[in-house]
Amino acid sequence: MLFALDAMGGDKAPEAPCKGAVIACGEDESLSVALVGPRGAIEAHIKSASPSVRSRIHIVEANEVIGMGDNPSSSMRSKKNSSLRVAMEMVRSREAVGCISAGNTGAIVAGGVLVVGRIKGIDRPGLAVPIPSLRKTTLLLDVGATVRCKALNLYQFARMGSIYMSSITGLDAPSLGLFSNGSEDIKGDEVISEAREMLLASGLNFEGFVEGKDVPVGRTDVVVCDGFTGNALIKFGEGIGELVKTLIREELRSGILPKVGALLMTPALKKMAARFEYEKNGGSPLLGVDGIVIKAHGNSRDRAIAGALHVASSFAGLRGTERIKESLEL
Amino acid sequence: MLFALDAMGGDKAPEAPCKGAVIACGEDESLSVALVGPRGAIEAHIKSASPSVRSRIHIVEANEVIGMGDNPSSSMRSKKNSSLRVAMEMVRSREAVGCISAGNTGAIVAGGVLVVGRIKGIDRPGLAVPIPSLRKTTLLLDVGATVRCKALNLYQFARMGSIYMSSITGLDAPSLGLFSNGSEDIKGDEVISEAREMLLASGLNFEGFVEGKDVPVGRTDVVVCDGFTGNALIKFGEGIGELVKTLIREELRSGILPKVGALLMTPALKKMAARFEYEKNGGSPLLGVDGIVIKAHGNSRDRAIAGALHVASSFAGLRGTERIKESLEL
Repeated sequence: MLFALDAMGGDKAPEAPCKGAVIACGEDESLSVALVGPRGAIEAHIKSASPSVRSRIHIVEANEVIGMGDNPSSSMRSKKNSSLRVAMEMVRSREAVGCISAGNTGAIVAGGVLVVGRIKGIDRPGLAVPIPSLRKTTLLLDVGATVRCKALNLYQFARMGSIYMSSITGLDAPSLGLFSNGSEDIKGDEVISEAREMLLASGLNFEGFVEGKDVPVGRTDVVVCDGFTGNALIKFGEGIGELVKTLIREELRSGILPKVGALLMTPALKKMAARFEYEKNGGSPLLGVDGIVIKAHGNSRDRAIAGALHVASSFAGLRGTERIKESLEL
Repeated sequence: MLFALDAMGGDKAPEAPCKGAVIACGEDESLSVALVGPRGAIEAHIKSASPSVRSRIHIVEANEVIGMGDNPSSSMRSKKNSSLRVAMEMVRSREAVGCISAGNTGAIVAGGVLVVGRIKGIDRPGLAVPIPSLRKTTLLLDVGATVRCKALNLYQFARMGSIYMSSITGLDAPSLGLFSNGSEDIKGDEVISEAREMLLASGLNFEGFVEGKDVPVGRTDVVVCDGFTGNALIKFGEGIGELVKTLIREELRSGILPKVGALLMTPALKKMAARFEYEKNGGSPLLGVDGIVIKAHGNSRDRAIAGALHVASSFAGLRGTERIKESLEL
């Protein structure tokens, strides 16, 4: 299966995407990657690949770049030869099974709608991020594709998120929560109340409202919210991860007993801090577009890009897009 | 200074409020507390107080209770003899300098508006919670008093939050951030954009948009958001704190080397997990009402209630309410 990877997307591009492609192709022999970007910027970073891996990495020339500060919709429309747009065109034309980018989130969403296209019947796409809890993972969506939502959007996120979680976990009916400012039925605003009514009548495994504290501990398999709220939560978690890392460093500098403890514990603590960098745990699928579009964190290193490629490949293997389409036809 | 304390508010009432009053009066000789509730439920819990402390603790009879599931406004209107309402009446009549409750948040806000009354010129009150970062504290408001906001509400939260932070930290002009889904100027929705324009023209030390990851690391002294978002963030932090505690327990059960480390580190790690239980760090002032109203976490133990009493006392000593009123007259 061939995936188009935006070689110019993210803070560490082109090195991280190129090396990520090499890592992922080394780990999965069924994977082929088209690195989309300027040939000259790519070649140096894939030289060290083994012949078997190199034979599955292709370069697709694209000479423009959509920057992190560019206006999402207008840059996606005007920069027709940008690495992100070309990668998305490959999904539209079915040359590639899916595309992956660590670039401008707004442009990825705009391109998902404008270039790849929405699934018929879906009003707005939702970006989904897995939140690891102790023994399970909660899928949170939307985390930024649709900043403010109508009830219909939340309802459709719930359907799509449930199908996606069912595919990746094998659960028959993943439990579903609607994010609100408290678990009592009277909480929320008009949009949230309306979405709640729709979900109660949906046949989904809907458990009602969940609140902030329920998300990190994994109360339900899927949590639905608008893009503003989801974005606030995952970035807040990222900030806590940063703070925890700083606290560990400070702790190491303090008294001798905790110092010994901290030295012994450092690997475990760092692993813990990394848990809250949700977006770095892999890729976030943009659900609701007619093809596979995976967003990786803007700050992704090669290892994280490889993870996003594996997410894309597994999404394809599970027929994620087709399952969402089939469920809408029921 | 006499403060009215709702003896029936919170999961651990009446024991925690009663014992909290005893602790706080023991720590601060200038403090007097009126425990508001049924005399029979209170007396047993204050028996052990020293004569000096006991002489500063009074019982004010009130025989109704507003429960956690009661409708906020209607219970505040109808339960005229509830412990919370009577405590608030004492603030309105100036018998008490302020009131403290760990009860129903919605009822505390409703009572703040209906009984204590808003400060002239303030449209909606805001509940403020201190978020401890590494070396400083960020004041986050609103965390649930005003679920959805107009731009004017966000603007007034910013003014009130800045004055409050200036009082408690001594900072001349606390730095201020407006919460959005990214730091670029184009982020947010219409309400947030309008509030941004008002803040740019306000003369406050406004640093523009802040996003989720900026809050735990303390990028600005004050962060303003609507009550839905603020509530989502503090409860999400609470959930992360719970998860961290569970992870520590799990870590203790695993291999021998981390076990030694974890045992040595346990106090430091528990302290770290507790950092994210923002509301338990003390009391949250309801800013914008014409008197001191402090909300404590519903799950507060006696120590947390004592902390909330100290927050109330310090708020009074700093003339917090008067300062907000004076600034509005400028």
